[in-house]
Amino acid sequence: MKPARLAIVGVGNNISALVQGVAVYRQADDPAELPGVTRPYVGGLHVTDLAFVAAFDVAEAKVGRPLGEAVFAAPNNYPRLVSELPDETTVVAMGARLDGVPPHLSDSVGPVGADRTVDDIAGQLRDSGAEALLYSLPTGSAGAVAFYAEAALRAGVAFVNCTPDLIARDPGWAARFTEAGVPVVGDDLASHLGSSVLHRTLLSLVTERGLHIERSYQVNLGGNADFRNLLVRGEAKRQSKHAALGGAYSDRVSVVPSGGYLPVLNDQKIGYIHVEAAGWAGATATIELKLSVQDSSNAAGVIIDLVRLAVLARRAGFAGPVHGAASLVKSPPLGDTDTSPQAFDDAVIKLDGAATILGGTQ
Amino acid sequence: MKPARLAIVGVGNNISALVQGVAVYRQADDPAELPGVTRPYVGGLHVTDLAFVAAFDVAEAKVGRPLGEAVFAAPNNYPRLVSELPDETTVVAMGARLDGVPPHLSDSVGPVGADRTVDDIAGQLRDSGAEALLYSLPTGSAGAVAFYAEAALRAGVAFVNCTPDLIARDPGWAARFTEAGVPVVGDDLASHLGSSVLHRTLLSLVTERGLHIERSYQVNLGGNADFRNLLVRGEAKRQSKHAALGGAYSDRVSVVPSGGYLPVLNDQKIGYIHVEAAGWAGATATIELKLSVQDSSNAAGVIIDLVRLAVLARRAGFAGPVHGAASLVKSPPLGDTDTSPQAFDDAVIKLDGAATILGGTQ
Amino acid sequence: MKPARLAIVGVGNNISALVQGVAVYRQADDPAELPGVTRPYVGGLHVTDLAFVAAFDVAEAKVGRPLGEAVFAAPNNYPRLVSELPDETTVVAMGARLDGVPPHLSDSVGPVGADRTVDDIAGQLRDSGAEALLYSLPTGSAGAVAFYAEAALRAGVAFVNCTPDLIARDPGWAARFTEAGVPVVGDDLASHLGSSVLHRTLLSLVTERGLHIERSYQVNLGGNADFRNLLVRGEAKRQSKHAALGGAYSDRVSVVPSGGYLPVLNDQKIGYIHVEAAGWAGATATIELKLSVQDSSNAAGVIIDLVRLAVLARRAGFAGPVHGAASLVKSPPLGDTDTSPQAFDDAVIKLDGAATILGGTQ
Amino acid sequence: MKPARLAIVGVGNNISALVQGVAVYRQADDPAELPGVTRPYVGGLHVTDLAFVAAFDVAEAKVGRPLGEAVFAAPNNYPRLVSELPDETTVVAMGARLDGVPPHLSDSVGPVGADRTVDDIAGQLRDSGAEALLYSLPTGSAGAVAFYAEAALRAGVAFVNCTPDLIARDPGWAARFTEAGVPVVGDDLASHLGSSVLHRTLLSLVTERGLHIERSYQVNLGGNADFRNLLVRGEAKRQSKHAALGGAYSDRVSVVPSGGYLPVLNDQKIGYIHVEAAGWAGATATIELKLSVQDSSNAAGVIIDLVRLAVLARRAGFAGPVHGAASLVKSPPLGDTDTSPQAFDDAVIKLDGAATILGGTQ
Repeated sequence: MKPARLAIVGVGNNISALVQGVAVYRQADDPAELPGVTRPYVGGLHVTDLAFVAAFDVAEAKVGRPLGEAVFAAPNNYPRLVSELPDETTVVAMGARLDGVPPHLSDSVGPVGADRTVDDIAGQLRDSGAEALLYSLPTGSAGAVAFYAEAALRAGVAFVNCTPDLIARDPGWAARFTEAGVPVVGDDLASHLGSSVLHRTLLSLVTERGLHIERSYQVNLGGNADFRNLLVRGEAKRQSKHAALGGAYSDRVSVVPSGGYLPVLNDQKIGYIHVEAAGWAGATATIELKLSVQDSSNAAGVIIDLVRLAVLARRAGFAGPVHGAASLVKSPPLGDTDTSPQAFDDAVIKLDGAATILGGTQ
Repeated sequence: MKPARLAIVGVGNNISALVQGVAVYRQADDPAELPGVTRPYVGGLHVTDLAFVAAFDVAEAKVGRPLGEAVFAAPNNYPRLVSELPDETTVVAMGARLDGVPPHLSDSVGPVGADRTVDDIAGQLRDSGAEALLYSLPTGSAGAVAFYAEAALRAGVAFVNCTPDLIARDPGWAARFTEAGVPVVGDDLASHLGSSVLHRTLLSLVTERGLHIERSYQVNLGGNADFRNLLVRGEAKRQSKHAALGGAYSDRVSVVPSGGYLPVLNDQKIGYIHVEAAGWAGATATIELKLSVQDSSNAAGVIIDLVRLAVLARRAGFAGPVHGAASLVKSPPLGDTDTSPQAFDDAVIKLDGAATILGGTQ
Repeated sequence: MKPARLAIVGVGNNISALVQGVAVYRQADDPAELPGVTRPYVGGLHVTDLAFVAAFDVAEAKVGRPLGEAVFAAPNNYPRLVSELPDETTVVAMGARLDGVPPHLSDSVGPVGADRTVDDIAGQLRDSGAEALLYSLPTGSAGAVAFYAEAALRAGVAFVNCTPDLIARDPGWAARFTEAGVPVVGDDLASHLGSSVLHRTLLSLVTERGLHIERSYQVNLGGNADFRNLLVRGEAKRQSKHAALGGAYSDRVSVVPSGGYLPVLNDQKIGYIHVEAAGWAGATATIELKLSVQDSSNAAGVIIDLVRLAVLARRAGFAGPVHGAASLVKSPPLGDTDTSPQAFDDAVIKLDGAATILGGTQ
Repeated sequence: MKPARLAIVGVGNNISALVQGVAVYRQADDPAELPGVTRPYVGGLHVTDLAFVAAFDVAEAKVGRPLGEAVFAAPNNYPRLVSELPDETTVVAMGARLDGVPPHLSDSVGPVGADRTVDDIAGQLRDSGAEALLYSLPTGSAGAVAFYAEAALRAGVAFVNCTPDLIARDPGWAARFTEAGVPVVGDDLASHLGSSVLHRTLLSLVTERGLHIERSYQVNLGGNADFRNLLVRGEAKRQSKHAALGGAYSDRVSVVPSGGYLPVLNDQKIGYIHVEAAGWAGATATIELKLSVQDSSNAAGVIIDLVRLAVLARRAGFAGPVHGAASLVKSPPLGDTDTSPQAFDDAVIKLDGAATILGGTQ
């Protein structure tokens, strides 16, 4: 199938993981058996059917350089999996700074470029032939997310929101995307294997077995820009993570999204989970868990499915918030309640069918 | 409802937890809200509707003493939850020694009493008015389990097998119980919250998320007689635990049922679980878990449901292996494949209905 | 020996642990064998030779109540070890608010009382016959620490500074205490068993064995007011803890004093330590450690030695910063470099001798 | 300096680590700065001044092959650090089988070769020009260790005993080595960074701080032949490890040298340590530690110092048990009590001086 044409906002670790991973998988022996990949194919789109046709950032070290070099520029610290990425020649363009560069991260960003207008960006998106725009700036940049969502909407390019900032689940934005005939996917990327799903699984299991949760906590640590950002902008994340645990025991559970920005960890993420419960005759049962993951691999393994879904939706002529990804995002669109992985596959089948009928519109 | 009349073989830690727990729950404010209890009622039988009418053991420190004292005799080391148990006056009778006292545990047992015959025991069971016999000797006592199953069968008393030794899932024994019109429940107690269910849950979760299990292990430690026994008789247990994990990755998983008999742990059980998996672009994700539980509370919380099921089955006139407990035992009877907790509740409703019609047969 | 007469500023968890602990030890069978006590006697002063003669706080829930009740008032959440403390009848007096009540903790404090003057407090200290003033307000209250140090100095009462705020190691304060003939002990309480000493011990051991530290971190979590405070005022603490690790590897070590304020932990403190090192042929060795302690017991076990040292020093007529406690504080006075426990015992012998000669000056 | 000429018995993982490590360090930029090496030089002997001049084994997969290939033969599972070892051309000779191949390991060994006599081996040692014989067979092979010690003694080659089997600390053997004018180094290799030293360090630290050890355990896991062997032959090791902890609290400590043979671990070794202690007012402090090391790197990092010591001793004309290595072995010769690393360096200086005077005798 024709590759999915992708534009990117924010050339951080997640994009480094995504771009390098695609390069790694291009060398796999069997395209149907890729370790670490949930779905080799989404509709007809293989993991490697991805073309990076535009990219935006504001960091001096990234703007003006080919994407294949920019992904390795500091403060990015995802490991280098390949010696170079000669095929990724798309040059990173100057984006709009706005609030996407919080003061607590600003030492990692160069001098502000000339700020851009929405129509500039929309025009550039149109010229690139992008089918979807992947939004991946630091959490909590309300101005930036609105700016780029508007640009995608004007350019008729599907929008994928990796952050907890409200787009896909916001009734106003949802209506505007629907009217404009443009699909939107989001909000807030779930991790491939994260602390929230592990914590929720443990709490449920313990409760199901008849033990009573007495107290529990979850603390996350990391060494990339996201953890540095969350130290300051963590409250929304904390509420989102806390809500994700559900349960009647929520007053006995404490959650800390970023317990520390630990430079020595680089892009590694550590989660500590503790569960204490009362069993038969009041006996205490305790579970201690440590999760250690490559944070951005954990993101890229989910992004790869979301962007293919968005491109399929656009090829199918779908408009507005795409349902079916509730297992892959933490805050799905209103009414999208089926959190099973199957819901995703069902949505893909429908969109793929429609896209095929439309004959691959682009 | 009339209390369930229970006979016991093997007055170890599990029985200490069971007897003490029932005493503790008798003092609860709200009988429908018992912390650490999965099902306050099974049919009409409340957790506290239990009468201990007979008990057998061979240890000098236990035989001839009231059950309420014997449960505290060494090598039992379950914590003392109540200062005394004045209501448990049933005197522990001399049982059959056979192979229920392995040499590696024999320092904890007194001189062999006069061995007993099956008919002796059967007569005593009948005289006690017991409705069910709870079999709880050390794993791997093939002679002892056959001896007591035979006695229950002859006495017309339901048999509950807590050990992995084959009874309920053995076609020969199943047929004999069916012919004799006696229910049998087993085999091999699942823990209330154990290493196997946690390990299986983690492996499944990781696999579902699209990561590939690379290697994993589970090691259990304890300080009670069970762990001392498993050091020698652990191979069947290892296979059972390994099988319980299921999965295509079993060659990459090592399981150790008893990694050590650590006297300092007393009745506490420790489980260490490690999972290593490959995610996006081959990045490694690692989970380290430590489970710490009161081993015998963990057992008693399940025994309480099994014995009530067995008594209900007998009152309903049910014959042979009782289905529905596959979520509570590791090796259910042949054909009993529904491992959901709901299956237990469904079985209870049916048996309870039949028992009511029969008018509480005894 | 005549009991040490102690005044207190800040009736928090540490004081609850101190007061309750003394009550617990008063019931011990053998005064020379107290579990959890490093030194039953310091000079002639036994752990229980302590009289609480004055106390200051600003919280509505504490001021005006007997010390024996105030130690149990929220937000204090140290466990209740004794049903009541009828002997601790000293009424908590209104202290000076100043910056001792940071805004991020202010929901836990009542309406501001009439602020007090230094001379008020000094007079009250004199009237109480206090020999030492134990300063235990939240870290980072530069105004409050100066206020109370001044009051102690004017009243001729020894000052014990539990916080990292500069007093004993400040040349200006040191000179003033010396001139006034008043002893001062501090700064910054070391824990009885804390993350810093464990972390330093592990790093040293690994380095001594010839392995090279590659990366390491330490993160602390708690649920008391101190952890809530440190989230905001943690930077000085971080630097102090980082310095405490020493070593040429400090650029490869990250330290987080408060990785989270977790209400479910109450007064429990959790420390996670990770050490990664390269051994023979580059093989990686990893150590993961979790420390769990009762935070305020950990403090009280050290306070008990510092206050007895301060009282001995005053009885000996000693003036200025007391040397010898460098094993018990994180920032000892300038020139006090012997961090061995022996140094403390040596100092005690000298002071005790001098005090005896002076004939118990008070 | 002239390279140390080394003969080897037992071409297992430790030897693989040793031989590969030497090859790795030969490529280092700065010979004085080798990561993971405690002492780049021992006397004049650099880590890389090692020539493997003879090797003995009984496994079909190893005998008759060059050492540089044999180290990679199963069941060895130390990682391959270098693609090949073309310089290690010494062919592995058939050794004496005796009890060096316990039945529980015998599936990993080929058909028994023609057994060898002591004089055969001694002759071969002499012909090879070996200066030291490194004995590294499975623990508990009393016959084998005596056989090879005898051969070394007759050949006049220094003997280095890595196992807990008694040689250097046995008065009879010590006397014979002394009479024969041959140095002997041992017994029982300490790990570079092992569970014992960590456990002892934690217990000491906690005790020094005034807390009282209440209970503690240590459990070790691995996937190499040593762990398989220790499951059966672990009792001596357990006593040795237990003794290594010292302390008045030994009745409250349990130690398990091999809690499991976990094939998935390969040559990785895992140690779990738990310490529980009572602090101020009885509050419990808990430490949980997990150590993860490459088992054979951990051994090779110590072997490298022992063999250089043995060679220096022989060149200095020293006879009998060499003192000074008590920090590197668990059971030093009688009277060798100084366990400081400095003792080793002092011994080296003396031997090196003597060797220089003798002019490098061989």
